[in-house]
Amino acid sequence: MSGQIVALCGGIGGAKLALGLYRVLPQHALTVIVNTGDDFEHLGLTVCPDVDTTLYTLADLANPELGWGRRDETWTFMRTLATLGGESWFRLGDADLALHVERTHRLRGGATLSEVTAAVAARFGITAHVVPMSDDPVRTMVGTPEGELPFQEYFVRRRCEPRVTRLRYAGAETARPAPRAHAALASAGLQAIVICPSNPYLSIDPLLAIASLRAQLTAVAAPVIAVTPLVGGRAIKGPTAKIMTELDLPRTPLTVAAHYRDIIDGFVLDSCDAELAAQFDCPVQVCDTVMLSLADRERLAREVLDFAATLRAQKSGRQ
Amino acid sequence: MSGQIVALCGGIGGAKLALGLYRVLPQHALTVIVNTGDDFEHLGLTVCPDVDTTLYTLADLANPELGWGRRDETWTFMRTLATLGGESWFRLGDADLALHVERTHRLRGGATLSEVTAAVAARFGITAHVVPMSDDPVRTMVGTPEGELPFQEYFVRRRCEPRVTRLRYAGAETARPAPRAHAALASAGLQAIVICPSNPYLSIDPLLAIASLRAQLTAVAAPVIAVTPLVGGRAIKGPTAKIMTELDLPRTPLTVAAHYRDIIDGFVLDSCDAELAAQFDCPVQVCDTVMLSLADRERLAREVLDFAATLRAQKSGRQ
Repeated sequence: MSGQIVALCGGIGGAKLALGLYRVLPQHALTVIVNTGDDFEHLGLTVCPDVDTTLYTLADLANPELGWGRRDETWTFMRTLATLGGESWFRLGDADLALHVERTHRLRGGATLSEVTAAVAARFGITAHVVPMSDDPVRTMVGTPEGELPFQEYFVRRRCEPRVTRLRYAGAETARPAPRAHAALASAGLQAIVICPSNPYLSIDPLLAIASLRAQLTAVAAPVIAVTPLVGGRAIKGPTAKIMTELDLPRTPLTVAAHYRDIIDGFVLDSCDAELAAQFDCPVQVCDTVMLSLADRERLAREVLDFAATLRAQKSGRQ
Repeated sequence: MSGQIVALCGGIGGAKLALGLYRVLPQHALTVIVNTGDDFEHLGLTVCPDVDTTLYTLADLANPELGWGRRDETWTFMRTLATLGGESWFRLGDADLALHVERTHRLRGGATLSEVTAAVAARFGITAHVVPMSDDPVRTMVGTPEGELPFQEYFVRRRCEPRVTRLRYAGAETARPAPRAHAALASAGLQAIVICPSNPYLSIDPLLAIASLRAQLTAVAAPVIAVTPLVGGRAIKGPTAKIMTELDLPRTPLTVAAHYRDIIDGFVLDSCDAELAAQFDCPVQVCDTVMLSLADRERLAREVLDFAATLRAQKSGRQ
């Protein structure tokens, strides 16, 4: 497959498929547009968890045990911060911290988040384009019975315990897409857009809340394919299923496909949910979507790209 | 000895004597007023090397090998920062970094440097008052043949190599003394002021450049005693001797005493310079001033305090 592929992703689950795509595609063919709705200012530092997870994952620096942060990490900073009475609920490893300090320093010096991210990706030797969805701040705010919580307060400090009543993406109404995100979606060579198996509400919706990005995704000629974040009614990781229950949404991939209705041209369903395939009102590809090994990531990436090629052929056949 | 003692100090050498005083004095009897002229903004963090050296020294957390930073330090942050292309000429250990990040965060939140320093001292269990000379920024600028260098550029990045032609303490003309520094020098119970064996030009002069602090030191009733930073024409550590040569100043304790002329009531001279004693125009105490062991620090502290008691008795005898 030649041409350009765009992946939309959040953190862990999404980044796994992004890695698979990165490994099976030619160099520079992949652009990963990453959620920044869970970015936040912490200890005076700008922390971008999903961007960093994507960078670390593509660079093979990710911590496989924790599912976030870097491998071979040390924790001296965090231990010491606690002795100073500093906030220790959000854990920052010593190596991870270097990225937050350096990024914050460059942002204060006038660089954009896109520029900093591209520079770090280059330093890491990553030959995909890793692009934050926007250089303007968008902040996911989680409505709960006890009031609205900033995302990381909900996600990390409160471990997703409060019931979600509503989600809001503060800043999305005025945020502009990152230049490279816009350009990738506008590229004449664009072959497919893959919505990775990230949480639709927490990881993909912030991106879709930027009107011009959503408009591009709706209008784009290349097929848009969503990969299910639900397998047998459960999410592999994270609170997707819990949130769907709390928002009174049926906990099935059909709900996810309906959620992306005006955007997607195809849906990748897990084998264990194969009996649902006939109920989708878009083409469905059934395969194993659980990515345990690196081979799983590559295999799923190939399946998704093959599915895209089929949809592309059908689309052009119709035209 | 009851009552209050004030020590003025810079980094390493000065902090050694401050530790000696701290250990031989009753709890809460010591106030250490610390140079902030070598503070700087680095990677977006406010770094206060002399304040931190003093805190670490009094808390028995200082790194004995390096002479700065913390013992049992790890360096993951610094190593990683270098891989990101960040500035790595000023080394920040992972534990040390916790203090810089937390301090910067609190300063941005509106706390004063005095408040942050007192809070950290309390966390460390230090029962002396550790006080920055001012909460307003004063920055030592080093004039050299290649132009003026910010202090840390000169001191760390350039390893004191450039020839010093002039020193300037930017901000000192408008900086106010830290409230607790002013209060300590105005205290009715003040028994002595000790100018620790720090570099007069780099560590003590920034403090003396704050007019109201200098005025307090000149007018105070309690004896002011300077401890020689030179032993046999050399400094134990640091560029004191080199700078004196470059500024065309005779490299002898007499020059230091003359430098403090309008402030000091007595001078502590090292035994190996005993032959100079008669040339001073103030009372001189001759003793071993080189502090290798903890016992050395305590012994010198006791000698200085005894000398102060003698001077105090003479002063009151004259009154």
